[in-house]
Amino acid sequence: MKESPLFWPASLKKNILHVLDETLIPKRVQYVKVRNTKEAVCVIKNMKTRAFGQFLVVLNTFLLEIVNNRSLTDKALLKKIVSTANVLNKSRPTFPFAEVTSIVVGWAQKAIADGVDLKSYVTKNIEGYLYGIRMQRLGRVEQIAKIIKDGDSILTHCNVSGEIAMAAALCREQGKDIHFFATETRPYMQGAKLTAWEIARLGGRVTLIADNAVATVMDDGLVNKVITGSDRSCANGDFANKIGTYQIAVLAREFGIPFYVLLQPSKKIKKGDDMPIEVRDPKELLQYEGKKTYEGKVDGFYPGFDIVPSRYVKEAISIKAT
Amino acid sequence: MKESPLFWPASLKKNILHVLDETLIPKRVQYVKVRNTKEAVCVIKNMKTRAFGQFLVVLNTFLLEIVNNRSLTDKALLKKIVSTANVLNKSRPTFPFAEVTSIVVGWAQKAIADGVDLKSYVTKNIEGYLYGIRMQRLGRVEQIAKIIKDGDSILTHCNVSGEIAMAAALCREQGKDIHFFATETRPYMQGAKLTAWEIARLGGRVTLIADNAVATVMDDGLVNKVITGSDRSCANGDFANKIGTYQIAVLAREFGIPFYVLLQPSKKIKKGDDMPIEVRDPKELLQYEGKKTYEGKVDGFYPGFDIVPSRYVKEAISIKAT
Repeated sequence: MKESPLFWPASLKKNILHVLDETLIPKRVQYVKVRNTKEAVCVIKNMKTRAFGQFLVVLNTFLLEIVNNRSLTDKALLKKIVSTANVLNKSRPTFPFAEVTSIVVGWAQKAIADGVDLKSYVTKNIEGYLYGIRMQRLGRVEQIAKIIKDGDSILTHCNVSGEIAMAAALCREQGKDIHFFATETRPYMQGAKLTAWEIARLGGRVTLIADNAVATVMDDGLVNKVITGSDRSCANGDFANKIGTYQIAVLAREFGIPFYVLLQPSKKIKKGDDMPIEVRDPKELLQYEGKKTYEGKVDGFYPGFDIVPSRYVKEAISIKAT
Repeated sequence: MKESPLFWPASLKKNILHVLDETLIPKRVQYVKVRNTKEAVCVIKNMKTRAFGQFLVVLNTFLLEIVNNRSLTDKALLKKIVSTANVLNKSRPTFPFAEVTSIVVGWAQKAIADGVDLKSYVTKNIEGYLYGIRMQRLGRVEQIAKIIKDGDSILTHCNVSGEIAMAAALCREQGKDIHFFATETRPYMQGAKLTAWEIARLGGRVTLIADNAVATVMDDGLVNKVITGSDRSCANGDFANKIGTYQIAVLAREFGIPFYVLLQPSKKIKKGDDMPIEVRDPKELLQYEGKKTYEGKVDGFYPGFDIVPSRYVKEAISIKAT
């Protein structure tokens, strides 16, 4: 299967974590080197990596800390793992860092309780877990390709870390003639910079539209499916995703277009209202490529995500609950 | 009443038409000098002026041509007026140029039929017509201010050439505590560059949001009214406005928020489906401030306007039909 750099944007090489700098895409494919928790928090805070990349950074950071602290006793290493988890948990809201870090802390505690070597036990578990996720995501690419039929025109929003682009490439190999509309996804333009780039890079056909043009392309019959990712989801099927997903879901229902979402289901949170929404610095909205978009005494409001109630979703394409 | 430069963006001074260059706002308030039809078409095609500014340019262009051709006989001048109308009509779709130019051609024909001096008859009529429009628009600012109640938070999209900013200022004078959300309005960012600027300039409170954040601010209860302008409207109340207006209208209904539109009703077109929609050069979407937003083989689709069915409108605030 053709792979997009965004599908697996962070990998360990010789005890250094190489993290794809998504802020440089589509201009350059370049990796930031991360050696410890501090540097990991830095790439997360600066949004060098997002969504699935954050998940990879979080898990790999524990591998880095185990290597960096190999001379510590198991008990001291457990403390180190707990403090690493605490630091990572505070790096950004919305993404469920604690859900991921608590798994690693649990493994470390179990190693102590069972009297097995903590370093090798936790390392083996993280590596196995990552391998499992990789297999599941590759499987989901196949599921997405199954849902897409010959002749489909699919609207997507923001970016789904390679899966949609790879499904598009798979559909092409299967002889399906398909087309994508990608919304720009202001203010970061992930749709323009990441999604359109990676779909086109793998040979797919993609047309960019302003976030404003969704109702029009739907009403004109130019789109017959919507597929988006999700950053976080709840037991009842509500999910959080990049700001703008909610209105696309509402519009899809209004125009009778099925809305599919790629979920990583979690039962830890019951419903959408219980999820915290990250309100990011308005500066990120009020400028583009370093230039102010306005003049005068103007405020900005930039909720980074919105929460889509499950009633707008036709079908969730899930990987196993974490 | 405090006036915004966008309220009356083109005026004749010593036989030269001074047209506000809206592409330079908010950085500079600067006027382009227009001396003839060719230069008028140029400012329209390059979108130096838009919406109401186009209307002013069209009418004033006839005044320029009457001055430029004062030595012609009335019959030759009629021909000149007809050819001017034809050139203006072709300058851009969506805006109903022919509806405006046909009025002037009618006056010129009537002058000939009635045997009165064409130059002074047409000039007097255009000047009187513009004065009437000005009074009606000032009246509509008062109507908008009446609809806005103390404590309101109003969402607006694109730009309404001064009226909303002036209504906001009037509300403040009336002691009403109100707030505006302005959508950025990609790709030209009229919301950021024009609307937020002019509301703030007249002392109003305004918060910019991405076009993506409409559903969220509505669902969070941050907005209790929507007011937008219209570029063109139909006998049945359907109207065309900047791309993105349609989806805001759909969302307003979904979240139970009343949608108001400022109309210039026209009975010439029966319904929305009969209006042509200008699809602009995708380049205008695929770059921002001269920089490409994407890489690779990516298309763009940029309908400049969308058509909002009248069923989404709570109330149309109209000026007299032209």
